[in-house]
Amino acid sequence: MKIGVLGTGMVGNALATKLVQIGHQVMMGSRTASSDTGQEWLRSVGGKGQIGTFANAAAFGELIISCTNGANSVAALRQASEGNLRGKIVIDVSNPLDMSQKPPTLTFCNTDSLGERIQREFPEAIVVKGLNTVNCDVMVNPSVVPGDHNLFICGNDVAAKAKVAQFIAENFAWKRDNIVDLGDISNSRGTEMYLALWIRLWGKLGTPHFNIHIVRA
Amino acid sequence: MKIGVLGTGMVGNALATKLVQIGHQVMMGSRTASSDTGQEWLRSVGGKGQIGTFANAAAFGELIISCTNGANSVAALRQASEGNLRGKIVIDVSNPLDMSQKPPTLTFCNTDSLGERIQREFPEAIVVKGLNTVNCDVMVNPSVVPGDHNLFICGNDVAAKAKVAQFIAENFAWKRDNIVDLGDISNSRGTEMYLALWIRLWGKLGTPHFNIHIVRA
Repeated sequence: MKIGVLGTGMVGNALATKLVQIGHQVMMGSRTASSDTGQEWLRSVGGKGQIGTFANAAAFGELIISCTNGANSVAALRQASEGNLRGKIVIDVSNPLDMSQKPPTLTFCNTDSLGERIQREFPEAIVVKGLNTVNCDVMVNPSVVPGDHNLFICGNDVAAKAKVAQFIAENFAWKRDNIVDLGDISNSRGTEMYLALWIRLWGKLGTPHFNIHIVRA
Repeated sequence: MKIGVLGTGMVGNALATKLVQIGHQVMMGSRTASSDTGQEWLRSVGGKGQIGTFANAAAFGELIISCTNGANSVAALRQASEGNLRGKIVIDVSNPLDMSQKPPTLTFCNTDSLGERIQREFPEAIVVKGLNTVNCDVMVNPSVVPGDHNLFICGNDVAAKAKVAQFIAENFAWKRDNIVDLGDISNSRGTEMYLALWIRLWGKLGTPHFNIHIVRA
């Protein structure tokens, strides 16, 4: 499958590398066509991928994964240009964290979310929020954390969510039953606000390699 | 032990009832000395407790549990009066939810929390945030949810947190190891903001009888 990964940071790297390893065609996008981090990634996967601008990567992908710094996600998607997103599933993996604060706060929350903002700004894209509640090593390899634990997705398009859940299960080896569909895109508020607890647990546990398992009566 | 429970709602009821059942002396406080909900509670426990104003209950308790509606917690504690809280542990169980919104939002979050507000407003009280991430049936009986799952506490006084953890373990049968001390009172932001996810999970699962278990590498 042709996949456009927007963002060449730690998360983009982990996702793009895994996807290349299992045989997908991946183009990583960044602000410039040939960023240092993009070139570094390309070398790390032995040239088995492509790099380009946000617009190049969005035009290339049948599926788009948005994993830029949350503060820049909307701007990056504007550079990707709406025409390149039209009718495509955009998995929004980012959290709108203000990293200048210690511990980081959210730049907005409670009555809005990044998932909703992206869907509002790009109504012709099919936004599915997901993967944003775990560290990137856990995203692509849930067995880093033992046993069952959960992932959350949400979005307005039921068929797209089913496809994304299947994509995550097939490519990253998440058990399908551990992926919880919370409902429409406004549920991004729930998973993004959970980051306030996630960040503190990271500090407390001393490792980002953890997750939560929902246990119910 | 003499315990003042502020708030005669569902949470106050569950906590006060359990504490009376295991032999504690409990006074429930509300705005008026003899509220309908207070009298109802007193009948439900066969008269084995007391009811009074917030000030009566705070004066009575060696330990105070604040479980009023989060929107009213600070006002209720003002009525309880700082003198009655001085040097006492106040367990803040409430979440600052705006129930007029569907789903409820938080009235403040991200850069502040109810736990912090209470500690700021009543510097001579020893505030420990806790129990606010589970339904009240789970609070007093964690075995409602099978297996291991976690509770979070935070506060500025290390000794007080240890006492609260022991209190919860002894009285409500939580495993001590499942109670996570997140650090100072500002960590209330993390557990209060988790409510945004909790509320959605409640809707999704169709039961409030669930909790999260932290799984780590």
